[in-house]
Amino acid sequence: MCDRPKNTDVRLRLPAVCFIWQTAMIILFGIFIRYDSESSPYWVEYKRDHNISSDAENDFYFRYPSFQDVHVMIFVGFGFLMTFLKRYSFGAVGFNFLIAAFGIQWALLMQGWFHSLDYSDGKIKIGVENLINADFCVASCLIAYGAVLGKVSPVQLMVLTLFGITLFAVEEYIILELLHARDAGGSMVIHTFGAYYGLSISWMLYRRNLDQSSRLQGSVYHSDVFAMIGTLFLWMFWPSFNSAIANHGDGQHRAAINTYLALASTVLTAMAISSLFQKHGKLDMVHIQNSTLAGGVAVGTAAEFMLMPYGSLIVGFCCGIISTMGYIYLSPFMEKHLKIQDTCGIHNLHAMPGVIGGIVGAITAAAATEPVYGSEGLIKTFGFEDHFEHRTPAEQGGYQAAGMCVALCFGIGGGIIVGCILRLPIWGDPADDNCFNDEVYWEFESFKSFIPLKNGMNDSQ
Amino acid sequence: MCDRPKNTDVRLRLPAVCFIWQTAMIILFGIFIRYDSESSPYWVEYKRDHNISSDAENDFYFRYPSFQDVHVMIFVGFGFLMTFLKRYSFGAVGFNFLIAAFGIQWALLMQGWFHSLDYSDGKIKIGVENLINADFCVASCLIAYGAVLGKVSPVQLMVLTLFGITLFAVEEYIILELLHARDAGGSMVIHTFGAYYGLSISWMLYRRNLDQSSRLQGSVYHSDVFAMIGTLFLWMFWPSFNSAIANHGDGQHRAAINTYLALASTVLTAMAISSLFQKHGKLDMVHIQNSTLAGGVAVGTAAEFMLMPYGSLIVGFCCGIISTMGYIYLSPFMEKHLKIQDTCGIHNLHAMPGVIGGIVGAITAAAATEPVYGSEGLIKTFGFEDHFEHRTPAEQGGYQAAGMCVALCFGIGGGIIVGCILRLPIWGDPADDNCFNDEVYWEFESFKSFIPLKNGMNDSQ
Amino acid sequence: MCDRPKNTDVRLRLPAVCFIWQTAMIILFGIFIRYDSESSPYWVEYKRDHNISSDAENDFYFRYPSFQDVHVMIFVGFGFLMTFLKRYSFGAVGFNFLIAAFGIQWALLMQGWFHSLDYSDGKIKIGVENLINADFCVASCLIAYGAVLGKVSPVQLMVLTLFGITLFAVEEYIILELLHARDAGGSMVIHTFGAYYGLSISWMLYRRNLDQSSRLQGSVYHSDVFAMIGTLFLWMFWPSFNSAIANHGDGQHRAAINTYLALASTVLTAMAISSLFQKHGKLDMVHIQNSTLAGGVAVGTAAEFMLMPYGSLIVGFCCGIISTMGYIYLSPFMEKHLKIQDTCGIHNLHAMPGVIGGIVGAITAAAATEPVYGSEGLIKTFGFEDHFEHRTPAEQGGYQAAGMCVALCFGIGGGIIVGCILRLPIWGDPADDNCFNDEVYWEFESFKSFIPLKNGMNDSQ
Repeated sequence: MCDRPKNTDVRLRLPAVCFIWQTAMIILFGIFIRYDSESSPYWVEYKRDHNISSDAENDFYFRYPSFQDVHVMIFVGFGFLMTFLKRYSFGAVGFNFLIAAFGIQWALLMQGWFHSLDYSDGKIKIGVENLINADFCVASCLIAYGAVLGKVSPVQLMVLTLFGITLFAVEEYIILELLHARDAGGSMVIHTFGAYYGLSISWMLYRRNLDQSSRLQGSVYHSDVFAMIGTLFLWMFWPSFNSAIANHGDGQHRAAINTYLALASTVLTAMAISSLFQKHGKLDMVHIQNSTLAGGVAVGTAAEFMLMPYGSLIVGFCCGIISTMGYIYLSPFMEKHLKIQDTCGIHNLHAMPGVIGGIVGAITAAAATEPVYGSEGLIKTFGFEDHFEHRTPAEQGGYQAAGMCVALCFGIGGGIIVGCILRLPIWGDPADDNCFNDEVYWEFESFKSFIPLKNGMNDSQ
Repeated sequence: MCDRPKNTDVRLRLPAVCFIWQTAMIILFGIFIRYDSESSPYWVEYKRDHNISSDAENDFYFRYPSFQDVHVMIFVGFGFLMTFLKRYSFGAVGFNFLIAAFGIQWALLMQGWFHSLDYSDGKIKIGVENLINADFCVASCLIAYGAVLGKVSPVQLMVLTLFGITLFAVEEYIILELLHARDAGGSMVIHTFGAYYGLSISWMLYRRNLDQSSRLQGSVYHSDVFAMIGTLFLWMFWPSFNSAIANHGDGQHRAAINTYLALASTVLTAMAISSLFQKHGKLDMVHIQNSTLAGGVAVGTAAEFMLMPYGSLIVGFCCGIISTMGYIYLSPFMEKHLKIQDTCGIHNLHAMPGVIGGIVGAITAAAATEPVYGSEGLIKTFGFEDHFEHRTPAEQGGYQAAGMCVALCFGIGGGIIVGCILRLPIWGDPADDNCFNDEVYWEFESFKSFIPLKNGMNDSQ
Repeated sequence: MCDRPKNTDVRLRLPAVCFIWQTAMIILFGIFIRYDSESSPYWVEYKRDHNISSDAENDFYFRYPSFQDVHVMIFVGFGFLMTFLKRYSFGAVGFNFLIAAFGIQWALLMQGWFHSLDYSDGKIKIGVENLINADFCVASCLIAYGAVLGKVSPVQLMVLTLFGITLFAVEEYIILELLHARDAGGSMVIHTFGAYYGLSISWMLYRRNLDQSSRLQGSVYHSDVFAMIGTLFLWMFWPSFNSAIANHGDGQHRAAINTYLALASTVLTAMAISSLFQKHGKLDMVHIQNSTLAGGVAVGTAAEFMLMPYGSLIVGFCCGIISTMGYIYLSPFMEKHLKIQDTCGIHNLHAMPGVIGGIVGAITAAAATEPVYGSEGLIKTFGFEDHFEHRTPAEQGGYQAAGMCVALCFGIGGGIIVGCILRLPIWGDPADDNCFNDEVYWEFESFKSFIPLKNGMNDSQ
């Protein structure tokens, strides 16, 4: 079935999907979504009723700068990180844009139903924190996109995102609400889930003859520089990512510091391993673009805990090594023996560091003590309130570990099911010898002579 | 007169204009501009006198993060959006830089005289809100630059900016102060005015033989990726643009949410139309770079109103369609039949969405009711205070519509007059066969062999 | 000794340095670094004890947006500004990343010992302000990197950074604590020190036969556009740089306004001089990329003083002229006669404007009067408290000038010593005919045919 000549014309399918889904969004938003008390004009009265002295107490001012940083990570960070391929920069940044723009809308609904539903009137009340969470939710689908980059059609990506967001919201509800695990930076909820979701899909969509596209699988000089834009914006704003929805005050403050330190440490060990394992000690851009970010993934869960500054450095130290080694040894192994073709190496950047992050989070939570956190700090940091007021740190550690397992199961299970759906021959995916090629889905009329790339002549530009 | 061989040497003219205008700025700033009470060292005493408990109440902390986002939109957003041409990236980003840097100074003065003059001492008192407004003001001139990109000299651009800022300040004063229309995100004041100003100038500067430069009018692969940097920074930070000068608290909060949603919706419909109207359903980078932003323009006026989340999605939905269709059908029509050569297609990105934004704002204002806004919220949102305390929402709708007309008149009228001035043969503009060419105004000595571009050889790089 | 064939294989040296130094960081952080009261879970109790009503009073919310802007300047700003060379973009952005990531860790320790040591328990307590200061500290080493760009190995850069940070911390302690000079934006502490440190090193590492690499010393079209990304992010966020650690409230507010204005003014005069001194009045990208930033350097010290808006414009006006003239006349002179090879022209961008900034700061401080600042404002702005309560503005001006001299001495003296160390033939630096070449330290396996660059064919891409 897969050997038929492929029809990559998405002229009807893509517009149909976009229009139908966007129309559905409008209807569902009309039924469900309203402003919350901090973004509605009743804020003036709300302030008075709740004895709030100043507009500065509006959550907007606590979270909006972090929100914008996260927004940059989603659209520029993820988008440009994937521009490294020599002829798939349009697809990287353009399809990233498409699925993120759809995903945030669907995420507002899905997460809203689970977390922000006001049972008094059946409406979802949104504010800036919901926008951040929607961006987070989309991040998991963009991670998954990294595994299948260049091998799928935009219609497939829309389907991947629709199901990905849905699975994410359920998984997140189980982990954060039912298990009451903490995961401020989403090591488990976002990275582990997203990465295994993408890897499972990639496994289901395995292409035996992908080497027919090998001429397009490398980078050129300037595409690598473009990718560094993505890397750096992800790296710089990761402290905002991990602190964006942490507790006001010390929670956000500490999460930012821990992430800043873990990332700094990762850069040094990633560079060291990259140099050590190449002939002549030359650095490989792939490692610099990706592995330098692993520390941010791995402190996601524990960022708001008392990981301590040296603890953050240690986490970063280890992840830089593991992630770079993954690119050198594990990725070729997985492609050859496990039939997982992972274009961007998300297993090394998100999956392994995500799992490490979950484990670090569980250990740090289990090791929490009152002298370190203070009695009020312990309650606030881990949310030992209401139903959970009798939970001990050791138990919390166990629930954190359980959360990790839920993320893994949803990622792998969901990915296999969605992978099956994406194998249907109706989505307009490219042929094996035409992967990683922008000409399949993008108009190049204005470029009169698009040079054949076998001729190495211009590859280095 | 226009057929004489063109002299594009601006060696005396450009420095003369820069030095004279910058010197004038220094003198005028010396006479008029001072720090306001929140940026002067008397803030300590001001706080005590006004019973302000915390430095966090300083307007700086409410607006500075949004200001920086707007700043990025002006310099990186607009600058890089225009780098799409294969050989005009220096001009795009460099002249954008020049006119914005001059414009913000002149805008501080012009807007200061109209809005921030302290009649007790005849001084303009500036703070962070003035910086944002200056950036806004410059945005209208940068929009206008989009229409004439590649066809004018830097000296002409300085003249365009001088008059553009002046016209803007008067128009803004009439719309916001005299008519008391609301326009937080500037759909009317910035986008409609700026776009028609630019289009009228472009009409006055019509070049019959522009096709002599057609070899330079397209993009190349990497110039399109550069342009996506501009697109994404504009797209991501548009919520900050529309919320930057909205009311503290719920006003800024709501404006950000509405803009976020409108933009998300636009992306899907712009992509859908782009695919639907191309052969083989291939996407066109021009549409992705530009039309995806139309939703942000169109919710500018209504962003702080109770547009409702689904309302924002509907506005974005429509604008994505209209803007993309504009690129496909209207721009060629305008060039052929109306003699308007619109390099960046600002008619599709700013003019039409701006007018839609003005209409949406008028309708939303006219439809405002006390149950939806609350009595205090209604007064605060529409500024029904002092002279305007008896105005009804329906009347407000009328004044909003009147504001729209003022913006259109100033844009078209001002553009025609300034266009006449720019037709004088003294400004050093390029010949018809040398438009869209950085070599005219930029030194390329270091690039030993600048390849002739007729040879398609390197176009795809 | 220098004429031996060079061994640029850093396969053991670079990993060794990275691992040893990163391990040392972990140990030292374990011993010394802890969270401060605003980032520890005891914040809940601290708030109650100190009668702080709201989380909004946490320093995080006053400084985090500025911190993120500074972070972007360090990693994207400095990194991309140096990508202008046609074949050293990887080295520019990659080694910038490496040394910044190491430097911020070492800076937290060095600055912590001098400024934030809690003598009660011997620990350094860190919060967001320490992160900003660490970024500032690293900036001085990145400035120094600009002088030796393309001519040193990553191992040398690590050594340069280790000593640079150490010297910086001592110099900063003398200037800010002992002399009690004020330097919010670091004209003296960061720019003057960093620039003379780099220039002295470059002088010690003078390469007689550097013209053997002249084929690689220019830019190509797109590398210049990449560099503009760096320029613009530096330019836009400079107001955050100069205001990041200024006093809460009016201090930060005023510093941002002054910097915004100085930078705007610089753009016009830099463009004017660039056009005036080139044949045919064409603009030179080197000047636009660099000299437009000089105003931000030069208002660093005085940004939080009452420099007045017109004063800021005047400073920017002068620096735009001086910096551009420096590129045209001084840089060739220094290379030819003083044997200082300054790849990025940091003498024009940081050294001269930094010295000007120190002088402007001294004059502005000496001219301070109570009517202008208010009695409380004067004390708060200049820190005339505790030991320094009897200091007069005139004396302060003298101490500012003394601070300038300290920065110069540390820069030049430190640079000469470190330059001696870097001349040892053990660091793996490139041969004279292989400078400015990414192929020395970066793996290019994937680019099958890396085109010889003598053939100008592709240079313009």
